[in-house]
Amino acid sequence: MDNLLYWIGLVAVAVNALTGVLDAGRKRMDLVGAVMVGTATALGGGTVRDVLLDRTVFWISDQTYLLVAIATTLVVFFAVRGLKLPQRLFLIPDAIGLALFTVAGTQIALHWHAPWLVASLLGVTTGVVGGVLRDVLCNEVPLVFVRGELYASAAWAGALVLIGLQELAVSPVVAAWAGMAVILLARLLAMAFRITLPTYTERQ
Amino acid sequence: MDNLLYWIGLVAVAVNALTGVLDAGRKRMDLVGAVMVGTATALGGGTVRDVLLDRTVFWISDQTYLLVAIATTLVVFFAVRGLKLPQRLFLIPDAIGLALFTVAGTQIALHWHAPWLVASLLGVTTGVVGGVLRDVLCNEVPLVFVRGELYASAAWAGALVLIGLQELAVSPVVAAWAGMAVILLARLLAMAFRITLPTYTERQ
Amino acid sequence: MDNLLYWIGLVAVAVNALTGVLDAGRKRMDLVGAVMVGTATALGGGTVRDVLLDRTVFWISDQTYLLVAIATTLVVFFAVRGLKLPQRLFLIPDAIGLALFTVAGTQIALHWHAPWLVASLLGVTTGVVGGVLRDVLCNEVPLVFVRGELYASAAWAGALVLIGLQELAVSPVVAAWAGMAVILLARLLAMAFRITLPTYTERQ
Repeated sequence: MDNLLYWIGLVAVAVNALTGVLDAGRKRMDLVGAVMVGTATALGGGTVRDVLLDRTVFWISDQTYLLVAIATTLVVFFAVRGLKLPQRLFLIPDAIGLALFTVAGTQIALHWHAPWLVASLLGVTTGVVGGVLRDVLCNEVPLVFVRGELYASAAWAGALVLIGLQELAVSPVVAAWAGMAVILLARLLAMAFRITLPTYTERQ
Repeated sequence: MDNLLYWIGLVAVAVNALTGVLDAGRKRMDLVGAVMVGTATALGGGTVRDVLLDRTVFWISDQTYLLVAIATTLVVFFAVRGLKLPQRLFLIPDAIGLALFTVAGTQIALHWHAPWLVASLLGVTTGVVGGVLRDVLCNEVPLVFVRGELYASAAWAGALVLIGLQELAVSPVVAAWAGMAVILLARLLAMAFRITLPTYTERQ
Repeated sequence: MDNLLYWIGLVAVAVNALTGVLDAGRKRMDLVGAVMVGTATALGGGTVRDVLLDRTVFWISDQTYLLVAIATTLVVFFAVRGLKLPQRLFLIPDAIGLALFTVAGTQIALHWHAPWLVASLLGVTTGVVGGVLRDVLCNEVPLVFVRGELYASAAWAGALVLIGLQELAVSPVVAAWAGMAVILLARLLAMAFRITLPTYTERQ
């Protein structure tokens, strides 16, 4: 499981870095701006989780994450530069990053002996904060707060599946895959069919 | 005193969660968005204080705070939904939350052996950061920076009263009530009579 | 070297507080708003560095920094109030603050046994975050992300010079001055001659 978690973390960092660069590109940032936004998107969620848990920040204790984030941003910057990409393309890697980070964050919080409710919320935080940082730095309303499609709720559902299955003695590896599948499916279906939660005001 | 602090903390969390949901409602967020904004408003200030003091984050060491925050947001969301509330209504719970959180934050920083100036500023931080988060997440200029009415200055005055009275050997419980009264009164009077501090530029 | 670092830190705090107040003034904030923005600009970068390194936050362990920040904001507020200053004036103290904070932040991270890549990025963080906070609180697009002139890249170059020279057995004091000179020169030349990095999209 530890091995799986490590790889999930690395892939999540790369995928989130990718979405950060794509978003920075739409704002026509320069090389260093794009690298900074990509790196913040990749490392932001896990950093907040580690600070809240008073754990050594993951990219300080293991530089591999930092190198993967920077390398990904550089490759994407030069590969995609000048191409015309459809605006909503980055929503798919964004959903993948959400699934990977939420599961990794929840599992790490459980290892750190957080109670289940706290662990599930720290998992959602890990999944969501990177994208919030990206959107704030690019001066957009964070995707997670956009009314309509499931986002944080999809992440929370997946975190609870991950925790619940392990309570039922399912192996952590299977539980992790199930949690990620729930998040990814819920998010993609919500985007495809515009599934929404109740909103606050019916009338205005 | 510890008992009083605990209750002050719980009420402050509930009151701030309420203001967060009311604000999220005006932006027509959905259920999860409103819960997230309400919870961030409720827990943000104390979280920053604890991270700066290198203390275990209060809602991780005691889940009650988290449960109170989430329960309040859910109740308020469904209770207020569809009602038409006057725009400035949430300013009164906001002032109560400011008073409660500033006093709780200052006292906790003193317990943690922070010097008085640092303790008073960490108190102001505890009182103010939740509302700043709420306003940033709802894409508004933070109330605390709006020119005109006393806000952070009211909180700072109350924190200094709390510290000064204890220096004069007044009991912590009395000092806490006095500090809260100062903040609440200063803020409400400032709103009622538009009391302001000098601004930077007279002419433009 | 420790002595030099201490003074660099104090001057950096004062210079950054100055830029924060100047910016708050353009937004016509009141006294407390200006003090808060100035103090956040002065202390923000180092605070994030210390939280990431799990070090006691520098202005909590030594109140001098906090007093310097507040005193500077008060003096500047009353000195400059009512004057008409050229809009871009604050870019020069901003460049000085960037140079001082980046070098101090990098060196502290090295002392704390961070690997070189992490140390250089924490140095850039220390240099850049205060200004980002200032710009976000004043509701502007952060200078560091504005397309065009070198900013974070200048800071990174200086941090790498500081680290590289020490690897080559140059004395830390000389390396620190060299690093600061690189950052200040690169930033000023970039502003004067509009030196830019490649941007993401050529065509639109």
